[in-house]
Amino acid sequence: MGFIPTGIHHENIAGLEVVLADGDVVRTGQFAMTTSQSAHNTKLTFGPTIDGLFLQSNLGIVTKMGINLTPQPQAYMACSFDMPDIEDIEFIVDTFGEFRRNGTIPYMAYVYSVIEWTAIFGKRGDWYDGEGPIPDWRVKEIQKELDTGFWTCKFGLYGPLKIIQEQFNEIKRVTEKNPKGTLRCNVFHGSEPGKLLDATDVPQPYGGMFVGVPSMWSLPLVDYYIKPGGVGAHSAYSPIIPLEGKLVLDWVKAAKAVYESQGFDLLCDFFMGERHAVFVCMLCFDKTVPEQRAAIDKIFHGLFEEGKKRGFAKYRAHVNHMGKYKVK
Amino acid sequence: MGFIPTGIHHENIAGLEVVLADGDVVRTGQFAMTTSQSAHNTKLTFGPTIDGLFLQSNLGIVTKMGINLTPQPQAYMACSFDMPDIEDIEFIVDTFGEFRRNGTIPYMAYVYSVIEWTAIFGKRGDWYDGEGPIPDWRVKEIQKELDTGFWTCKFGLYGPLKIIQEQFNEIKRVTEKNPKGTLRCNVFHGSEPGKLLDATDVPQPYGGMFVGVPSMWSLPLVDYYIKPGGVGAHSAYSPIIPLEGKLVLDWVKAAKAVYESQGFDLLCDFFMGERHAVFVCMLCFDKTVPEQRAAIDKIFHGLFEEGKKRGFAKYRAHVNHMGKYKVK
Repeated sequence: MGFIPTGIHHENIAGLEVVLADGDVVRTGQFAMTTSQSAHNTKLTFGPTIDGLFLQSNLGIVTKMGINLTPQPQAYMACSFDMPDIEDIEFIVDTFGEFRRNGTIPYMAYVYSVIEWTAIFGKRGDWYDGEGPIPDWRVKEIQKELDTGFWTCKFGLYGPLKIIQEQFNEIKRVTEKNPKGTLRCNVFHGSEPGKLLDATDVPQPYGGMFVGVPSMWSLPLVDYYIKPGGVGAHSAYSPIIPLEGKLVLDWVKAAKAVYESQGFDLLCDFFMGERHAVFVCMLCFDKTVPEQRAAIDKIFHGLFEEGKKRGFAKYRAHVNHMGKYKVK
Repeated sequence: MGFIPTGIHHENIAGLEVVLADGDVVRTGQFAMTTSQSAHNTKLTFGPTIDGLFLQSNLGIVTKMGINLTPQPQAYMACSFDMPDIEDIEFIVDTFGEFRRNGTIPYMAYVYSVIEWTAIFGKRGDWYDGEGPIPDWRVKEIQKELDTGFWTCKFGLYGPLKIIQEQFNEIKRVTEKNPKGTLRCNVFHGSEPGKLLDATDVPQPYGGMFVGVPSMWSLPLVDYYIKPGGVGAHSAYSPIIPLEGKLVLDWVKAAKAVYESQGFDLLCDFFMGERHAVFVCMLCFDKTVPEQRAAIDKIFHGLFEEGKKRGFAKYRAHVNHMGKYKVK
């Protein structure tokens, strides 16, 4: 997962060098040909494609890899679309899913809930000091304070300025039919005409991972539940869900009930592919507090059961949870 | 290879069912989970990705496959850009390569030579009745007769009308700096406002494979060299070449010399990825004529030697030629 045009890294690999357990060296793709001028220019392979064997695996040690990079664009538009209510996720998923599939948003779109956004800027105690999950009335107040929605969809458009402006206009044309939404954009381009954009010139919260610059900017969110002396940590339950508004809304409601059963807030975000979402239920906790560790474990298993009922699988699993996926 | 947004089919596979030699059934991707709601919605897999083992291979029989389809677009623009001289390929490759990488042409661009174009509309004898390769002066005449270039780059833009119009404008802005080029376009959209395009409504030469409709339209080209009673056939030598104008021009000159050494015409086309070209040297012949069979064999081996010197490999090989790629 990732932003920028080549952000889905495993889909941009062009040739590997791998050392196998017996010491053999394997070179894949065009890199297999010693004299190839096209090694690392293409994913095309000879016969069966074996690159995938060395992804998420321990079948070898990758010692070299060709990977496509995103060329500096003429311009980058940092866009967001936010909506105020939990139910609005249905509109966002169906509308932006269509944009993902029809060439309007060619790259990843990322959606987060207001609670996840607050967690980047402060600890839970800064926002609400009562017991149990933050009540809906307080969430609405926070939305006003931060001028944000319950859901915010963030995405980047990259390329020649006029093309991305027209992509934005198409998004505007379609989304303004729903008066509940707020669409925003900021444009960045080279420092003078004809100059390409330098990614490091883009300030936060528009730059960083949205322009391919590694960043720890959002990491404070793992400290959401800590108090002085605490240590932030996180787990996650992250199912892959078909990109259908009704299904995602049903999942959000089920997940919220599980979090709240343990007095925790729904803390989530998700990544929109063209036909699926990777829905990250963030499980932040203070690992010095035994009650929080126990509660987070209950939330994980609760989410797992809800996901299982719906035929969802996680996009990745902690080693402690891998056994739960055993096929009978 | 292919046109339309999901035209590179092997990059759009989402889950396979494969029967192995021992009768075991393997299901890949999310399809591996019996109850998955996301089977065929995503390429994401559990652990190592094994789909590639069953592409171009005999390691199993694929009995089911999920594959992404291109949704009907709002509009389709059939575009072409042609240039008159053989050397112009350098400009085409470098300029359109940049378009392929910067979001202006998100899908495959296809380039063919004038001789390949003539071959679709008539046999060689219809264009030239002398011995040996068609001389340059006659090729120029044919270009005028057909109002085409020595090279034509064809590509489709698919999506919301205003976005593809702006993609076209960017191509116009950049290519009109070179007065030798001719840019053309034809727009097709739904039969009434708000209606999506029906691919079968697009006439040839704009429709067919450019809108995902299987077509034998260009097949007459294999009959290029036949005379009454003959039987058309073809082989090919199709190297993968880095997408650099100078390299492609050098290859074209070398290939032309090989074809002409046997009295044949340079008959070629190529497909532009983002960073590589698949360059198809078409080897059409009349298989009832022993001299043509022998000449085509010499051309194949001549092209192979020229390609080998340059570090090129074929994107596919006839079984008779596979041994030539043996690694020492």
